[in-house]
Amino acid sequence: MNFRNKYDEYLSFFEGELKQFCAEMKHFPPVLTESMRYSLLSGGKRVRPVLFFGSLSHFGGDYTKEARLAIALECIHTYSLIHDDLPAMDNDDFRRGNPSNHKVFGEANAILAGDALLSEAMCLLLGEAGRSERHLRAAQYLADAAGADGMIAGQSADLLYTGRTGDEKELSFIYAHKTGKLLTAPIVMAAILCGGDEKKAEEFGEALGTLFQLTDDILDEKGESAKMGKTLGKDREEDKLTCVKVYGMEGAELCADRTAAHCHALLRALGGDGFLASIVDLVRTRDN
Amino acid sequence: MNFRNKYDEYLSFFEGELKQFCAEMKHFPPVLTESMRYSLLSGGKRVRPVLFFGSLSHFGGDYTKEARLAIALECIHTYSLIHDDLPAMDNDDFRRGNPSNHKVFGEANAILAGDALLSEAMCLLLGEAGRSERHLRAAQYLADAAGADGMIAGQSADLLYTGRTGDEKELSFIYAHKTGKLLTAPIVMAAILCGGDEKKAEEFGEALGTLFQLTDDILDEKGESAKMGKTLGKDREEDKLTCVKVYGMEGAELCADRTAAHCHALLRALGGDGFLASIVDLVRTRDN
Repeated sequence: MNFRNKYDEYLSFFEGELKQFCAEMKHFPPVLTESMRYSLLSGGKRVRPVLFFGSLSHFGGDYTKEARLAIALECIHTYSLIHDDLPAMDNDDFRRGNPSNHKVFGEANAILAGDALLSEAMCLLLGEAGRSERHLRAAQYLADAAGADGMIAGQSADLLYTGRTGDEKELSFIYAHKTGKLLTAPIVMAAILCGGDEKKAEEFGEALGTLFQLTDDILDEKGESAKMGKTLGKDREEDKLTCVKVYGMEGAELCADRTAAHCHALLRALGGDGFLASIVDLVRTRDN
Repeated sequence: MNFRNKYDEYLSFFEGELKQFCAEMKHFPPVLTESMRYSLLSGGKRVRPVLFFGSLSHFGGDYTKEARLAIALECIHTYSLIHDDLPAMDNDDFRRGNPSNHKVFGEANAILAGDALLSEAMCLLLGEAGRSERHLRAAQYLADAAGADGMIAGQSADLLYTGRTGDEKELSFIYAHKTGKLLTAPIVMAAILCGGDEKKAEEFGEALGTLFQLTDDILDEKGESAKMGKTLGKDREEDKLTCVKVYGMEGAELCADRTAAHCHALLRALGGDGFLASIVDLVRTRDN
């Protein structure tokens, strides 16, 4: 099976499970359910769930048994986007080609939708934690990755360094946390669940997270807004600390190429894998 | 030991454990740690942890072994206050006599501090979940109580009914969720951990939660701002759906008296308890 077919298999399984999950959400008031569904079902590439399923397959696991961990992962990612788009944060009016959550439901409801999605993740993870010792550990890994030493530290650093001069060290902290933690988690969680090499999985995940944010920064500068589904050029406008600011565009592209090569080397150490290797190439060459 | 001494014993144990927890938080950037600590350590009556410890003692448990669940409870309560005080939500400049989180750290950092505290709770609960089957169930109860069918549903309904005509049914939904869920949780969690009667614990908790919000609404109308540590009269100003709006002040006081009596009756069904009975009286007669 080629890469595209495999990606679609994972994606369509995930979309089916997520739709089911959303259909079963019957929170009151209706606006709460609607605002949660709006962002959860707004499409996107579902990189984290697909990476999780691909990694489970790589380590010899059955991905169809881990849908709820994948949904927890996507709930956390989605809540972070909703809060990140708020006027007090990145103030983005568009996300995935649609008006962002607060543009549709208002700021107060968007704050609550984000809180509710993080809470749903907490409930899902506690549900999974009861399945086995390994599930408990995988859930804990994700919770740590999402928290104050993980993704939120990256968001906070991103705010802190906006409008300031920053160097490579500060940039790499933002990359490792803001983006890296939640892209590393699905790979390490898969290793935990299947008894794979967690250390090597983590190294590969961290490199892939760096690559993802490098290309994100590059695309913010030279991508097409229609393809990306969000307003571009905002990093420069707001003077964010990005790889383009630190290295210049040529330097950033070079850095992305090197990081992609590093990802491939780490993947070989992890036992090689056609699907995950293609993910690396996709992340490097994507236009959205 | 009289009620006040017992309350102080629980309170001082909790404050010690919380201080230790905060001292061990070493998140980067420093502003993230500072904003989390600022709200966590801003005092308050610690009603939920004290209620948890009192309930554990009631059911024959050792409260000193459950500090981390109490901290998780307080993290969730604190995050909800930080987000609730935001300009887009209740827009409160003061909390417990101090400037609210976003007045000190800015809105973006306050959003992240709230997210981080909820994430800390998630990590704590997953840590406790590994201790025993009962701990897992207690953690799940709290997660559900905090989530989209719990406290957040109450917050969302509170927004929805602001500025609208509402009746008793709508008021009781707000009460049961916005305040009730997180006051019921410590009592039921204690019952779960000690093998107590969960159903009766829940009934008592729900009545106590109602009483707490009734007196909160009454105090917003006729309390003293200096004692309450926050701006009062805001409910009327913003046309919130409160018991004073639905029943008038006299009716609200009467309703609070009846609810307090109901609490005492439910407590007797739970095996009676001097400490918890005094908590009911405290909640009814408090001036802050």
